[in-house]
Amino acid sequence: MHFGTSWYPEQWPVRRWETDLRLMAEAGMTVVRLGDFAWSRLEPSPGHYELQWLVDAVDAAAAHGLACVVTTPTAGPPAWLTAGWPEVLAVDAQGRRASHGNRTHAALSSPRYREFCVGIAEAMARRLGDHPDVLGWQIDNEINTVSFDDATRATFQQWLRGRYGTTEELNRRWSTVFWSQEYTDWAQIPLPTGPAHPSLALAWRRFVSETFRDHLEAQAAVVRAHARPGQWISANVMTWFGGFDQTALAAQVDLVGLDYYPGHLDHPDAGGAHAAVRGLKRRNHWVMEVQPGSNCWAGVNHTLDRGEARRIAWNAVGHGADGLLYWQWRAAPGGQEQYHGTLIGADGEPRPFYTEAAEVGREFAAAAAALAGTEVSTDVAILSGDEDRWAIGNQRHHRDFDPVEHLLTFYRPLRLAGLQPDILAPDAALHGYRLVVAPSLHLVDDAGTAALLDWVRAGGHLLLGARTGVKDRENALLPSRPPGPLGVAGIRVAEFYALEHPVPVSGPLLGATEASASIWAEWLTVTGGDARVLLRYGPANGWLDGEPAVVAVPFGAGQVTYCGAWLDPVAMTALVRQVVAQAGLAVATDGADGTDRVEVCRRVGPDGADVLILINHDDRERSVTLPVSRPDLLIGGDAGTVVTLPPGGVRVLGAAN
Amino acid sequence: MHFGTSWYPEQWPVRRWETDLRLMAEAGMTVVRLGDFAWSRLEPSPGHYELQWLVDAVDAAAAHGLACVVTTPTAGPPAWLTAGWPEVLAVDAQGRRASHGNRTHAALSSPRYREFCVGIAEAMARRLGDHPDVLGWQIDNEINTVSFDDATRATFQQWLRGRYGTTEELNRRWSTVFWSQEYTDWAQIPLPTGPAHPSLALAWRRFVSETFRDHLEAQAAVVRAHARPGQWISANVMTWFGGFDQTALAAQVDLVGLDYYPGHLDHPDAGGAHAAVRGLKRRNHWVMEVQPGSNCWAGVNHTLDRGEARRIAWNAVGHGADGLLYWQWRAAPGGQEQYHGTLIGADGEPRPFYTEAAEVGREFAAAAAALAGTEVSTDVAILSGDEDRWAIGNQRHHRDFDPVEHLLTFYRPLRLAGLQPDILAPDAALHGYRLVVAPSLHLVDDAGTAALLDWVRAGGHLLLGARTGVKDRENALLPSRPPGPLGVAGIRVAEFYALEHPVPVSGPLLGATEASASIWAEWLTVTGGDARVLLRYGPANGWLDGEPAVVAVPFGAGQVTYCGAWLDPVAMTALVRQVVAQAGLAVATDGADGTDRVEVCRRVGPDGADVLILINHDDRERSVTLPVSRPDLLIGGDAGTVVTLPPGGVRVLGAAN
Amino acid sequence: MHFGTSWYPEQWPVRRWETDLRLMAEAGMTVVRLGDFAWSRLEPSPGHYELQWLVDAVDAAAAHGLACVVTTPTAGPPAWLTAGWPEVLAVDAQGRRASHGNRTHAALSSPRYREFCVGIAEAMARRLGDHPDVLGWQIDNEINTVSFDDATRATFQQWLRGRYGTTEELNRRWSTVFWSQEYTDWAQIPLPTGPAHPSLALAWRRFVSETFRDHLEAQAAVVRAHARPGQWISANVMTWFGGFDQTALAAQVDLVGLDYYPGHLDHPDAGGAHAAVRGLKRRNHWVMEVQPGSNCWAGVNHTLDRGEARRIAWNAVGHGADGLLYWQWRAAPGGQEQYHGTLIGADGEPRPFYTEAAEVGREFAAAAAALAGTEVSTDVAILSGDEDRWAIGNQRHHRDFDPVEHLLTFYRPLRLAGLQPDILAPDAALHGYRLVVAPSLHLVDDAGTAALLDWVRAGGHLLLGARTGVKDRENALLPSRPPGPLGVAGIRVAEFYALEHPVPVSGPLLGATEASASIWAEWLTVTGGDARVLLRYGPANGWLDGEPAVVAVPFGAGQVTYCGAWLDPVAMTALVRQVVAQAGLAVATDGADGTDRVEVCRRVGPDGADVLILINHDDRERSVTLPVSRPDLLIGGDAGTVVTLPPGGVRVLGAAN
Repeated sequence: MHFGTSWYPEQWPVRRWETDLRLMAEAGMTVVRLGDFAWSRLEPSPGHYELQWLVDAVDAAAAHGLACVVTTPTAGPPAWLTAGWPEVLAVDAQGRRASHGNRTHAALSSPRYREFCVGIAEAMARRLGDHPDVLGWQIDNEINTVSFDDATRATFQQWLRGRYGTTEELNRRWSTVFWSQEYTDWAQIPLPTGPAHPSLALAWRRFVSETFRDHLEAQAAVVRAHARPGQWISANVMTWFGGFDQTALAAQVDLVGLDYYPGHLDHPDAGGAHAAVRGLKRRNHWVMEVQPGSNCWAGVNHTLDRGEARRIAWNAVGHGADGLLYWQWRAAPGGQEQYHGTLIGADGEPRPFYTEAAEVGREFAAAAAALAGTEVSTDVAILSGDEDRWAIGNQRHHRDFDPVEHLLTFYRPLRLAGLQPDILAPDAALHGYRLVVAPSLHLVDDAGTAALLDWVRAGGHLLLGARTGVKDRENALLPSRPPGPLGVAGIRVAEFYALEHPVPVSGPLLGATEASASIWAEWLTVTGGDARVLLRYGPANGWLDGEPAVVAVPFGAGQVTYCGAWLDPVAMTALVRQVVAQAGLAVATDGADGTDRVEVCRRVGPDGADVLILINHDDRERSVTLPVSRPDLLIGGDAGTVVTLPPGGVRVLGAAN
Repeated sequence: MHFGTSWYPEQWPVRRWETDLRLMAEAGMTVVRLGDFAWSRLEPSPGHYELQWLVDAVDAAAAHGLACVVTTPTAGPPAWLTAGWPEVLAVDAQGRRASHGNRTHAALSSPRYREFCVGIAEAMARRLGDHPDVLGWQIDNEINTVSFDDATRATFQQWLRGRYGTTEELNRRWSTVFWSQEYTDWAQIPLPTGPAHPSLALAWRRFVSETFRDHLEAQAAVVRAHARPGQWISANVMTWFGGFDQTALAAQVDLVGLDYYPGHLDHPDAGGAHAAVRGLKRRNHWVMEVQPGSNCWAGVNHTLDRGEARRIAWNAVGHGADGLLYWQWRAAPGGQEQYHGTLIGADGEPRPFYTEAAEVGREFAAAAAALAGTEVSTDVAILSGDEDRWAIGNQRHHRDFDPVEHLLTFYRPLRLAGLQPDILAPDAALHGYRLVVAPSLHLVDDAGTAALLDWVRAGGHLLLGARTGVKDRENALLPSRPPGPLGVAGIRVAEFYALEHPVPVSGPLLGATEASASIWAEWLTVTGGDARVLLRYGPANGWLDGEPAVVAVPFGAGQVTYCGAWLDPVAMTALVRQVVAQAGLAVATDGADGTDRVEVCRRVGPDGADVLILINHDDRERSVTLPVSRPDLLIGGDAGTVVTLPPGGVRVLGAAN
Repeated sequence: MHFGTSWYPEQWPVRRWETDLRLMAEAGMTVVRLGDFAWSRLEPSPGHYELQWLVDAVDAAAAHGLACVVTTPTAGPPAWLTAGWPEVLAVDAQGRRASHGNRTHAALSSPRYREFCVGIAEAMARRLGDHPDVLGWQIDNEINTVSFDDATRATFQQWLRGRYGTTEELNRRWSTVFWSQEYTDWAQIPLPTGPAHPSLALAWRRFVSETFRDHLEAQAAVVRAHARPGQWISANVMTWFGGFDQTALAAQVDLVGLDYYPGHLDHPDAGGAHAAVRGLKRRNHWVMEVQPGSNCWAGVNHTLDRGEARRIAWNAVGHGADGLLYWQWRAAPGGQEQYHGTLIGADGEPRPFYTEAAEVGREFAAAAAALAGTEVSTDVAILSGDEDRWAIGNQRHHRDFDPVEHLLTFYRPLRLAGLQPDILAPDAALHGYRLVVAPSLHLVDDAGTAALLDWVRAGGHLLLGARTGVKDRENALLPSRPPGPLGVAGIRVAEFYALEHPVPVSGPLLGATEASASIWAEWLTVTGGDARVLLRYGPANGWLDGEPAVVAVPFGAGQVTYCGAWLDPVAMTALVRQVVAQAGLAVATDGADGTDRVEVCRRVGPDGADVLILINHDDRERSVTLPVSRPDLLIGGDAGTVVTLPPGGVRVLGAAN
């Protein structure tokens, strides 16, 4: 476990460093992250590097027992760069070139920009690659900027040429004959700055993803060349940020960081944000930035409630985080983020939040040994693809069909059933999972679905959601009714409807319980006598009335359940609990109390020794009954079999002896 | 009667055509529309036309008994055109030039663009002008794009010079001395890209209208030159689209098409959309596009309820449509409208909606003979001018004063009284009408009003609404209190008020019934003893309290009623019913049941034989009592005198024997 | 007292002038304002002045006893100027250059524009500077336009160079090291067109303020050079307009005009708008424009209620206005403001509002002698700085923290306590005040706060509000907890919170009364035994619970009360009433009736003779009891000691004999 903060030594006199580092160490911190946004200090003029202060800062931190994560500063190009080579500034969809004075305002496809990025990254790696107290590296910061400049457009056109070979082939696969959009020259192809052709929009996102990946990889390569063994390379992503293919980015690094600014902790969907990042590499992640109190960019920048930071920290660990760093230690006197939460005030003294952070630090230290090497272990996976998300997000058909929110309608009841699903890319290997939930496998091809169906045939339980199997990998409609190749045993979507009003659903799944669908409803048909209709629609628009909404069919040794509607929590909970039971899964941990307010997370080591993290999200005391007593890692002693948690309380229990 | 769909043969392999055309014929279709958006296939490179496939498609359709409407493809310029001559791309009010990859993105004032448009139109007409199965032509599609490019600005300035002769004259008629806006050179005159001078804004709309008209006429001329006798030329307009003078456009063509995407059918104002288009040429129109199920561009793209398409179809016929075509038959695999409703699914099989369409096809066929040559016949006209609509729409004074919504406050109670008013331009000849309703004759001159007043003098009944007689034809305030030259018998607007809150109205019109005005209230005064105050305001802002809101005065052999307030439905219904009775009008058809849920439409042939269309908009059974029994054209036999309609049902009855 | 209207003689034939001027005189008017927006008539081509018509208009007015305020027309550059020198047109934050056809669309930093402005101003002053009937001058009109053009950017960069000397110094004071924003060349510095660095945003507003001031002063200088003794120079500002430093502008003129378009009169905060303008020069102001009925630019341009204009007029006088002019007399036939309220209709006849204006005219005349030389006299000041307002407004942290609304939470209860506070710049001399309220002295330095603390030490009572003492004069965080140098006797803000929900407050100030804080809450600490905690927070976010919200500490012979929360009216009223009492202030006038619906304003002459203005804002009769009877200046006779006011009534009482 690592615990720390982002520190900007370049913003402060060297004489202040000792005080800050001492206060960090006193709060139980073990790591500081530094370097991001320090470009103007690291390279004050083109090619002139000044790195000694950074080495000094790393040394000073080390003297207080703090290891360092060094970040390349390429999210903040210096003024000499944007003034000297204005073509590196990004251009927005309205055609306006960014001006200096912000961050992440460069065009990542710019060769000139990339050249300077590689330069500074290499200079830093040469100097600090062998430093024993540099734990690892971060490349850039929250990569996210898309640019619609002319040079990027030309690069995109060349990228398309590489992908499609001829414009004829592109025209065919995109059906550009629609609206007379056929291209006869690569130079004719526009950027998707308006309501774009779906295939163009998808291709653009793929190009952007590759641009981001190449930008990252260019730096990672030079850092890797100089890094000592053991130094890892990381990149950080924003919660549920869908602007590019995060899996491809993650493939270039050793560790993925999550920047996590939730406003408030929202159980039961909080674990999903961690699971989505943990799934990028299928290994533990770090929370590279987390809010200490308030943010500064929201309409109402409220604070975390007293005690909430502790729950956030343990929830993160419970869902796979091995590190957690507050952003930031102290605000610079000037600049756009003066009002962001920090641990240290403008006067250099700890703010009230510091005390709470220090408590987290103490607790992490107490549990670190038991947590070392443990991971979330689960039999359940959720499949979620960035490309599906872009395709649906751009053509929602119903304004409220948000793909992430749709995924969470499945995640939440799974989590409340005590499970900790992995969230994986659609092409992930599924060996070892017993239940797979795919909210919307929207863009499919035969090769991709074959492996999934093989897994079902071999005994897997698959729960599919609405808008599955609609399009091919070019974002073109498949020449079949949905779910296309996933329509096993005759499952077929006769028609789909964006709903104006909620529609009642009923059936054997619910018995006499009332529930409804909203936003989206598919009229299902099934052929084959083994199919069971679990839910049907009640009175609706005349078309749906009485038709199947959810069906289950056996397939090989397994089962496919297709849920064609956006169900309310009542119906979704019933559905999820049924497929969980059918998949032979028990509640994954032995601690849930049957309500939705006490969360139990479990991490398991290679030797099977596990750690339970119990979090009471309720404002009254709750208790959990365990089959055996476990040692309490935070307060010592044995917890007994009835573990009490005060309002908002956390208990961390080791493996029973 | 014609029934059909939009078909895009260029999007599909020729081997598929047979299947599609057979399915169309089986649905009772008689016509397909094709060619729109096929430019890149019809002219793959500048001046190189490839028309054989289109001829083949027409022939293939003909082989299934389907006639064709051939559309010029100029709403979708090919990429070689916009790339080779970027000046043809429209520029928006923010100064951004459109990029390729959308539709209707060309500047219609561009001589270069118009040259290519005429080229392709002529090539198509040369090839298909003598084809026996080409029923008619459509020029372009939903013309609507305004461009603020520099060339258009120069053209506009020359247009102003032609209209005003000297800048002194323009300055005088526009009162440009306000805010020192006087022009001394034509080149100084800006485009109205911001909050513009009202006279400039009006002149711009006139210029845009002439530009659209000229663009259309240029194509219409070359098509007409090659069209065989009997081939008509049409243009299609969007429901209530107010961007230009539709009457001027309609004058260039033989037939006007309405593109009708109502979301849901909304009786009693549904007929107004048809009446407004029927009135453009005072003859029957076609519904050239109508939604089959759902749209794809709304926030929530809900479907039509089961049965609703049939009501939409018969409502359209009842209000003057002689053709109805679904847009579209089948979605291209790619492109921006993948999610739009169609009759055929992505798998090439009929969607559920197909069955309902086929029912409409059967019914149209059954009633076609009786409907042939019939038209809506009415004694009532509503006058509505595009220029008035622009002037009020740009200076609403109250944000909710939407001119179309204001018109509908008059239309709805007329329709509920069983009438089917025509909606005509303000300068339409009024011979034969007994009641004329003018919701807002806003821009007036003596010549224009003289004819209207002569018509009243000769016995006509005129109902005027608020904001009448305010400005001259330059959008300048008249040097008089409203309603200016329409202030007959001393009707005068002492003051007008945008209302913050509804204000009660009462008077002899309402007796003890409570009603109110909102949005707008005019304080009326009348001189002359014959005036009757029908409604007065209750407690309001202190100024209006107790003052007249609606007055009626005899004028010659007729009567003028002035309604100075935006009345609620209760008051407006009372007012409309009173003027209808005073005009000596009975309910125009012998079928209304006194409620607002059963609609009765009537069309009459030149020989007086009529057809009644009864539509039950209610969700329960309703019946209508007729004086004599009529033959039922859909199910055969005699309908009897008590005609029953199931929920959502339609009956079509021929002339009594 | 002056009473009048804005008149645009250039818009009308000379033969009409007599009628208009006669109608003005009959309404009791004594002054007309003219010349604004007449530039195209005064200088029809570059350097060619035509001023005779303006002299004729002044003479014609004088013949009817109307004096003139001549306005330079520079808010409306003629078309020959913007066409000939397009660089004078302003560029908006999106980079779009304004086009002609609007107003205030020039870049005030343009030397070319300023040259033409000085030219026309000088020509007018040469001609009318010695005119006996020109009472005074107004320079430009509602100066407000900011331009982001390249020339302005270069001027701004030079301005920064003048202010900071070196980029190193600027970097240091702005902490540009944040996000690598350090500048090495002045030419790198951007304009704040996006979410800008706070120090850059502040510097830009200072630059804009100086630009506006210089633009004004350039004209004022040439006018002053030709003005006869007694002719004053004025500028007009919009209500609560915060775009620039109004105090600096006011320093260049003799009289400040307020343009007042309230929609409706909103007691008790109505007086604040006048106090803010009166405070700019600490002398009486004019209402240079006020709405006659309705405006034309709102979503709903409702009218003033009958009688409301009279209350607006007397409320203005009661709060320091010595003149009031309706905008405008009559609308030009054309132009963007055709629908704005006027006194004369499009037909040239008085509108209903004219009668009400004439009543105001009669009353002003009746009270003029008694009011001559009187001023509002008060012991209370509110300190409000434009720079504080910009800094907080740009970084609200809570979207509802509007600085003006925050000020009004203090103003309203002061006003309801019968006080008429001055609203002054933070550095105003405070001699003579007993209570000073500073809602948010946000940007502070030691020099500025020293004088304020000296004033407290000498016996003053100071009430400070939230967000005080946070930053330095560069908009950088002070290296201390707030309120920094104002933290006397140990008052310290331990932490501040943007509130999601209201939080209860309680304490000795309120006893058993319930009240709450919302939007903002500061957790206060105090050292020193003399501090009294007046209010504490109830259950909130866990941090604030039970902590001090409002504290009072003695300081020297005076007292500082710090209110760390945005209080609801209940708590704020209790707080204000307590500090008012502690400051030894009685209700300032002897007329308030203890409710909030009758307003009593008091003006006092140098000889101590006072005038009371009583305004009943209620819709029922109210009466006020006075200690002695006073003469009624409007209806004559003695008012008695129980003065009755009908609903909406006004009484104006002279000094008791």
